[in-house]
Amino acid sequence: MKKEVRPKGNQFLTHIIEPELREQSERFFDLMLQINDAHTLMLLEQGLISINEAKQLLKISRNLARQGPKGLDLVPEKEDLYLNMESYIIEKLGARIGGKLHTGRSRNDLYATIHRLKCREEVLHITELLLELRRMLLKKAEDNLNTIIPGYTHMQPAQPITFAHYLSALGSALKRDFDRLLAAYDRTNVNPLGAAALAGTGFDIDRRLTARYLGFDAVLTNTLDAVASRDYLAEVVSALSIMLSNIGRMNHDLYMWSTSEFSILQLPSEMVIGSSIMPQKRNPTVFEHIMAKVSHALGAFVSIVTTMKGIPYTHTKATGSEVFKVFWKALDETEVSLNVMVAVLDKIRINKDIALMKVKKNFSTVTEVADEIVRHMDIPFRTAYEIVKQTVLSAYEEGKTSEDLSIDDFNESAMRIIHMPLEGITPGVIKTALDPFENVKRRKSMGGPAPAEVARNLAQMKAELEADVSMVTDKKEKTKAAYDGMRKKISQVIGMSAK
Amino acid sequence: MKKEVRPKGNQFLTHIIEPELREQSERFFDLMLQINDAHTLMLLEQGLISINEAKQLLKISRNLARQGPKGLDLVPEKEDLYLNMESYIIEKLGARIGGKLHTGRSRNDLYATIHRLKCREEVLHITELLLELRRMLLKKAEDNLNTIIPGYTHMQPAQPITFAHYLSALGSALKRDFDRLLAAYDRTNVNPLGAAALAGTGFDIDRRLTARYLGFDAVLTNTLDAVASRDYLAEVVSALSIMLSNIGRMNHDLYMWSTSEFSILQLPSEMVIGSSIMPQKRNPTVFEHIMAKVSHALGAFVSIVTTMKGIPYTHTKATGSEVFKVFWKALDETEVSLNVMVAVLDKIRINKDIALMKVKKNFSTVTEVADEIVRHMDIPFRTAYEIVKQTVLSAYEEGKTSEDLSIDDFNESAMRIIHMPLEGITPGVIKTALDPFENVKRRKSMGGPAPAEVARNLAQMKAELEADVSMVTDKKEKTKAAYDGMRKKISQVIGMSAK
Amino acid sequence: MKKEVRPKGNQFLTHIIEPELREQSERFFDLMLQINDAHTLMLLEQGLISINEAKQLLKISRNLARQGPKGLDLVPEKEDLYLNMESYIIEKLGARIGGKLHTGRSRNDLYATIHRLKCREEVLHITELLLELRRMLLKKAEDNLNTIIPGYTHMQPAQPITFAHYLSALGSALKRDFDRLLAAYDRTNVNPLGAAALAGTGFDIDRRLTARYLGFDAVLTNTLDAVASRDYLAEVVSALSIMLSNIGRMNHDLYMWSTSEFSILQLPSEMVIGSSIMPQKRNPTVFEHIMAKVSHALGAFVSIVTTMKGIPYTHTKATGSEVFKVFWKALDETEVSLNVMVAVLDKIRINKDIALMKVKKNFSTVTEVADEIVRHMDIPFRTAYEIVKQTVLSAYEEGKTSEDLSIDDFNESAMRIIHMPLEGITPGVIKTALDPFENVKRRKSMGGPAPAEVARNLAQMKAELEADVSMVTDKKEKTKAAYDGMRKKISQVIGMSAK
Amino acid sequence: MKKEVRPKGNQFLTHIIEPELREQSERFFDLMLQINDAHTLMLLEQGLISINEAKQLLKISRNLARQGPKGLDLVPEKEDLYLNMESYIIEKLGARIGGKLHTGRSRNDLYATIHRLKCREEVLHITELLLELRRMLLKKAEDNLNTIIPGYTHMQPAQPITFAHYLSALGSALKRDFDRLLAAYDRTNVNPLGAAALAGTGFDIDRRLTARYLGFDAVLTNTLDAVASRDYLAEVVSALSIMLSNIGRMNHDLYMWSTSEFSILQLPSEMVIGSSIMPQKRNPTVFEHIMAKVSHALGAFVSIVTTMKGIPYTHTKATGSEVFKVFWKALDETEVSLNVMVAVLDKIRINKDIALMKVKKNFSTVTEVADEIVRHMDIPFRTAYEIVKQTVLSAYEEGKTSEDLSIDDFNESAMRIIHMPLEGITPGVIKTALDPFENVKRRKSMGGPAPAEVARNLAQMKAELEADVSMVTDKKEKTKAAYDGMRKKISQVIGMSAK
Repeated sequence: MKKEVRPKGNQFLTHIIEPELREQSERFFDLMLQINDAHTLMLLEQGLISINEAKQLLKISRNLARQGPKGLDLVPEKEDLYLNMESYIIEKLGARIGGKLHTGRSRNDLYATIHRLKCREEVLHITELLLELRRMLLKKAEDNLNTIIPGYTHMQPAQPITFAHYLSALGSALKRDFDRLLAAYDRTNVNPLGAAALAGTGFDIDRRLTARYLGFDAVLTNTLDAVASRDYLAEVVSALSIMLSNIGRMNHDLYMWSTSEFSILQLPSEMVIGSSIMPQKRNPTVFEHIMAKVSHALGAFVSIVTTMKGIPYTHTKATGSEVFKVFWKALDETEVSLNVMVAVLDKIRINKDIALMKVKKNFSTVTEVADEIVRHMDIPFRTAYEIVKQTVLSAYEEGKTSEDLSIDDFNESAMRIIHMPLEGITPGVIKTALDPFENVKRRKSMGGPAPAEVARNLAQMKAELEADVSMVTDKKEKTKAAYDGMRKKISQVIGMSAK
Repeated sequence: MKKEVRPKGNQFLTHIIEPELREQSERFFDLMLQINDAHTLMLLEQGLISINEAKQLLKISRNLARQGPKGLDLVPEKEDLYLNMESYIIEKLGARIGGKLHTGRSRNDLYATIHRLKCREEVLHITELLLELRRMLLKKAEDNLNTIIPGYTHMQPAQPITFAHYLSALGSALKRDFDRLLAAYDRTNVNPLGAAALAGTGFDIDRRLTARYLGFDAVLTNTLDAVASRDYLAEVVSALSIMLSNIGRMNHDLYMWSTSEFSILQLPSEMVIGSSIMPQKRNPTVFEHIMAKVSHALGAFVSIVTTMKGIPYTHTKATGSEVFKVFWKALDETEVSLNVMVAVLDKIRINKDIALMKVKKNFSTVTEVADEIVRHMDIPFRTAYEIVKQTVLSAYEEGKTSEDLSIDDFNESAMRIIHMPLEGITPGVIKTALDPFENVKRRKSMGGPAPAEVARNLAQMKAELEADVSMVTDKKEKTKAAYDGMRKKISQVIGMSAK
Repeated sequence: MKKEVRPKGNQFLTHIIEPELREQSERFFDLMLQINDAHTLMLLEQGLISINEAKQLLKISRNLARQGPKGLDLVPEKEDLYLNMESYIIEKLGARIGGKLHTGRSRNDLYATIHRLKCREEVLHITELLLELRRMLLKKAEDNLNTIIPGYTHMQPAQPITFAHYLSALGSALKRDFDRLLAAYDRTNVNPLGAAALAGTGFDIDRRLTARYLGFDAVLTNTLDAVASRDYLAEVVSALSIMLSNIGRMNHDLYMWSTSEFSILQLPSEMVIGSSIMPQKRNPTVFEHIMAKVSHALGAFVSIVTTMKGIPYTHTKATGSEVFKVFWKALDETEVSLNVMVAVLDKIRINKDIALMKVKKNFSTVTEVADEIVRHMDIPFRTAYEIVKQTVLSAYEEGKTSEDLSIDDFNESAMRIIHMPLEGITPGVIKTALDPFENVKRRKSMGGPAPAEVARNLAQMKAELEADVSMVTDKKEKTKAAYDGMRKKISQVIGMSAK
Repeated sequence: MKKEVRPKGNQFLTHIIEPELREQSERFFDLMLQINDAHTLMLLEQGLISINEAKQLLKISRNLARQGPKGLDLVPEKEDLYLNMESYIIEKLGARIGGKLHTGRSRNDLYATIHRLKCREEVLHITELLLELRRMLLKKAEDNLNTIIPGYTHMQPAQPITFAHYLSALGSALKRDFDRLLAAYDRTNVNPLGAAALAGTGFDIDRRLTARYLGFDAVLTNTLDAVASRDYLAEVVSALSIMLSNIGRMNHDLYMWSTSEFSILQLPSEMVIGSSIMPQKRNPTVFEHIMAKVSHALGAFVSIVTTMKGIPYTHTKATGSEVFKVFWKALDETEVSLNVMVAVLDKIRINKDIALMKVKKNFSTVTEVADEIVRHMDIPFRTAYEIVKQTVLSAYEEGKTSEDLSIDDFNESAMRIIHMPLEGITPGVIKTALDPFENVKRRKSMGGPAPAEVARNLAQMKAELEADVSMVTDKKEKTKAAYDGMRKKISQVIGMSAK
């Protein structure tokens, strides 16, 4: 428990090498074997090793895969997972065969490949979660086309919208987030293998072949770039930061709407936390958690970019090790956020009566009265605005709500400002303009909250979602097909009789 | 000069409203007029204002444009640039006409539009500078296909590469940076106008029409999203951060290579700074400046994302004002970096003799000897590696450089490790393997430093560059055509006789 | 207006040197003269220059001060403000005298000194503003000792507190912020002058003497540390970030309390913004601005620390120039925040009736009922908690508020849980426990909201404030005394007849 | 292995509650018991529980401590560690006794207390490691008072210094880091216990008493501040960021000096990494790791401050949970850095011959020649500077090093510039000025590299170090004494016969 201030032994080994070795083993063991296999197959096809050598290397790889990380005793003095694994293989197969596995490559490109494969896998999983979230948003929106809620600007009642309109706004934001993430995925999924230390190799390797076995979309051509570049990590985390920023803002809204003062939103008991001493408490802490997640992604972005500040464009431990210290954690926090948000969205309910009542009383429909005056009287908007503003100010003073406003109130202000009553404006015009449903229905210009317009927009968003689902499915299947193809090929080779 | 601790007056006006108003006027005056014009034309075409009203509004806009920001006295009590401008217009045209300009829109969508137009303009300029930099990198690379330099990993000599290979690595990175930036551009260039306060409008406006006049690629549909979203800013700045990270790493290399210890790189005197007291000084400070720029973009990203933390998804001053406090400055720093980098790359020269001499002596070609042993003797790579390693260690101890190594040195180690001399390895094989030019030439696998392979790759990169230049040119021309079209239409309308 | 993509001329000069030179001249002109004077006086006292030389140098300095920055034509080719100034002086006095000004120092220590003096001045001003804010908080708190407001946790009503209690919490936070800032000030206010380029000088200078003339508290001893270190900048900005974080959280509260849903807080009209189209709007945007300011300080911290990543511990342009790119702006944003916050706090009013009504109804006093049950019945807290919890749940279902609760409601739950009614609990006990004023009065344990306890605490905080005011006053006076002393000495020297 | 995209069950429980519960149990189990004990003792002394109740509560606490975290089955539905523990205690002791443990407090102040205790412990450990590092720096400096190394500015040779001078610069920086860290410690070590939910309690508790038992320096008075504030976390991490920035810059120097080009520094083999394919490699990767660590602390600072953006000043999950997501990891990375740096400093050696040879040849002593001309000839510094500059430029062109410069070279330049040879400057003067040892010895002004001056300064730094060691020892002992006192008191109470 007590930490030593003046510890014994090789501190570099204890504090740097060993923890990293353990982490590599836990996180990358299988991927390293997979890359070894792809490399072995390629060496065979290029005639750089014999069929017998390939068989032996593939078999021991299969053995290691079966045993898992526990099959390999880790010795920090051997530096890293690869050298530990190679040493095991050489011990089993002898140096003549085991020593050939590393032909034409280096640890630099090997880890560059592992990092990209692992990142690809995680990012793809996140895109799938994001698709789920988008799907849930759209579903919820469809269910709430006519659910009036107050639209706020600066947290003050502005104009009525619908919950569907609100959700569709976020759905659009998340579509952009998806596109950013997928672009990052595409820039991740390229093959650095064969770049060796930094300068490629004189052996006649085929980098397109390993790309195919490993399901990469292309080869990351320049060999220095292949071992030096980690900009894809920064891109992934910036995409996550921005996505979690959007999701966080949505959570801020839900959090506010859950206060007893707003009371617009209901969160089910299973997602609410009590107090250990205050018996009345129902805390929507889930929003507090999700709101915070952007901070961790942002911190990770800072860590990654700063780690790459003041370093050369080549392989270093900054890019090969330190840049990952916070990376995987940021992905985990993102997955938590998405998983939880899908469930939250599924479960929340708008308190429709309260939301509607607010809109009826909080003057947020009065802009439409000004618009109606413009339409009926050829009065410029700015003048109509002043008439309505005076009316509202008087109403405030008299303690009236917008529900209480009548044509007389507006006429009174009109008399003061344009020295005549409103012409052509009937009580019915006022009443309809102030009516939340009518008010919303009229806002049918492109992208507005009118239910018909939102429905139209949702249909389009749904089509986009389906296209995105296909795209992600294709990517998953492509990876799977690649791995399957490799497995098949391995079986074939192992089954061959050595010539 | 002395700042007051207990100042008089309305601090909100003095410290928040007024400085922002001045900045809006300096930065956005012309763009606001342009948007007013597009909106006016649309109102006319939609029959929401008369031809005469349109003429008046367009004419006064033209007048204001002619006078520039100085034509408008700014009154902080009127809050912002728009209300100051409207008040001027109403004063000149009367409320009947001037009051119609704002029909069917709000300041929220107006500024959202301004911000996107301004950002579009700046980002497009940056993409052009980036294209210049990529062009310069390729040109420089073509000139240095055979310029041997030491390739480093961990700042230690690793294997020889060429300056062309190095530059091509960076060229590839900058291509990714370009793609990221252009994607950010595309997500910037969509039209929020017509979203009004947040809920659209009941007036029959046409948002596609204003999009066309203003050169937007599409309409940003959902009206809440249109006023709330600023994720494009974060995306732009993250793309810049990543780009400046890549550029910064290149600068770190150039900075190191300019030390008297490395002496690989020559920077012309005009880019070198002396000392006020040390007469011998030639400081390559330009690299120190450019290396630092990523920090400012990163800081801006943090500022932007954090500003959007803990706020609602709607219009607020966080998104409408604070998020920009550091944004434009980050763009400026980027422009400085690119402008200077183009000039630096144009002017630097590799000290070829020194670079070559280093490679000849620093053992960075010995991996090839191990590879040759593998090729000639069917010895596994790991064993060949050990033979060479022992040889190098002995050489170090004896103070030899790699130039001094002979077949005998390798045989000595071979005897110790495989108990036999190297078979089939002639002195010529060793000599050629150790020769930097030969060494590089052999590394012709995909993406390697062999001049032929680099040349092949550069040709491809050049084709990509040309395609990207076309794309940017198209975007610029599209914008120009839109503005021209609008100008033409305005002249037409102004020239019409009122009906 | 149009920016050139392929500009002519020396880009390093245009984009790096010239803008920096202009900024130095605007920001540091006077300080440079002041340092020149201190250095000149020291050279004289150490016998390194003659009385006549000193007179000439001091006179021309006085002339330059009179003319201000405009008196000096800036030539970018001369690199920086100092060399421009020296060149002017040499031109006027001849090299024999003018050339002696720089004896025993360098630009490295000169700018290090300027930066610390400027930073000292700004930070001292910020501490004064912070003292004002603390004073205003305490004053406001004293005026609101009995102003009941709901205390929230997780934004849900928790227990009643008073506005004074709330303000005192923030007052305590700001006291910590003050201490952090002052510690940063103390680490700023040390003298690097005389460190020369990095290795001091062979001339017999006296660094304590220049420290005294310039009002530094001590000499920053190690000469390499003196030119290399900029950790004080990071410390200042981290202190500001933390302070603005605390202030930002307070603004989030005020912002929420200003919503029409909370309605606890009233902001005067002069600090409220309307809408250009929504006539009913009263937007408390000031809080949105101030809430955001922490982001900019945080971004600046990131920029500063990242700029110093991957650089040597010596003088570089990273520390001498780039680290300041965002520094002064962060100080400006802080000053804005403090100035505005003082005014806001002065002007806001709690809507006492609404706040009280909330507390009466929102069940936030019921913990006290559980405590009373514990006190009267020797029932463990956890059981009492359950009785009250059941009571509240039933009340929720029946649509009751806490004001409606009677002894019968609690007895009903007690019967269910402990199978007996509450003993010794009279209706009066319940009524008093639920009464907000009584409830608050009882919470008189150390630091609690009971008015007497808050008053006690405020008295202590006030004493601390007065002590802090004295400390800052002393620092200001010390600086002033130093400058006065120097001015006097200069007059003396100028008045001397040359020997 | 495969992650589910549409998982079953309560996602809030699975992803948020459960992982946090497990972490609390692993990290805070013992501290929670300790706080329970302190609270129990205080309740007893204040007469709020009986001696028998206290005995039972203290005994079960002792039992739990004996079993450790494994003694407690964790049930996520019970939310957190405290409620799980309370439920266990109630199960064992019955509600009558077990239900009293939480009297007069809440989870809010309980966790606030845990967080401060844990942070205190970790920070104190870090200060001890930092003291070790400072001690090692001073020791190494004392051993290298006469070890000449080139002093660089802008990575270019500037003036000779000694390794001791360099280390003393860093030692001064680390002293400031220590002071910052200790100030953060002091602001951490205050007692929030008794603040309850946010409003204190009506029970007559004594917060000073629990402060004494737990070894806090004071009570964190205001109860809202006590549960809301986490600024100490930000302060700790900012202090660590700045410290790791200083350490990182030192590592950048060591990294550069370890390149084969600089060759000034020798790192022992045990701290050097090879390559899996390049037999000649000796990579000083340890510096790459340590250089990066500032990035992670900086990222953590961003995460912490951003988490606290846009939240109220009260207890929330942002401050109670999310703010810690990256905090402990940042402390771990710091501990790694310090442990490794102590070992690195212990083991590195300067290659004295190479370092000296560089200084002899690289013109970094020529400033002294200019100074000598000033001293001997009453020529202004600027003129002397020009003479030397011309001399150096000619030498460069002729391929001479500074070792080759003679009086004739300087006279040649003097003739061109002042039209006369140097007067009073003998060959010996030149030779001595250019001699590195002599050059350094002369720079004996305050803080300069002259061995005598560095020795003087080191003595002072050593005295400061010893004072700091005492201070930290006192703090450790104070904590230990408090815990011992509590243990004793517990034994006493348990041993008492119940009255």
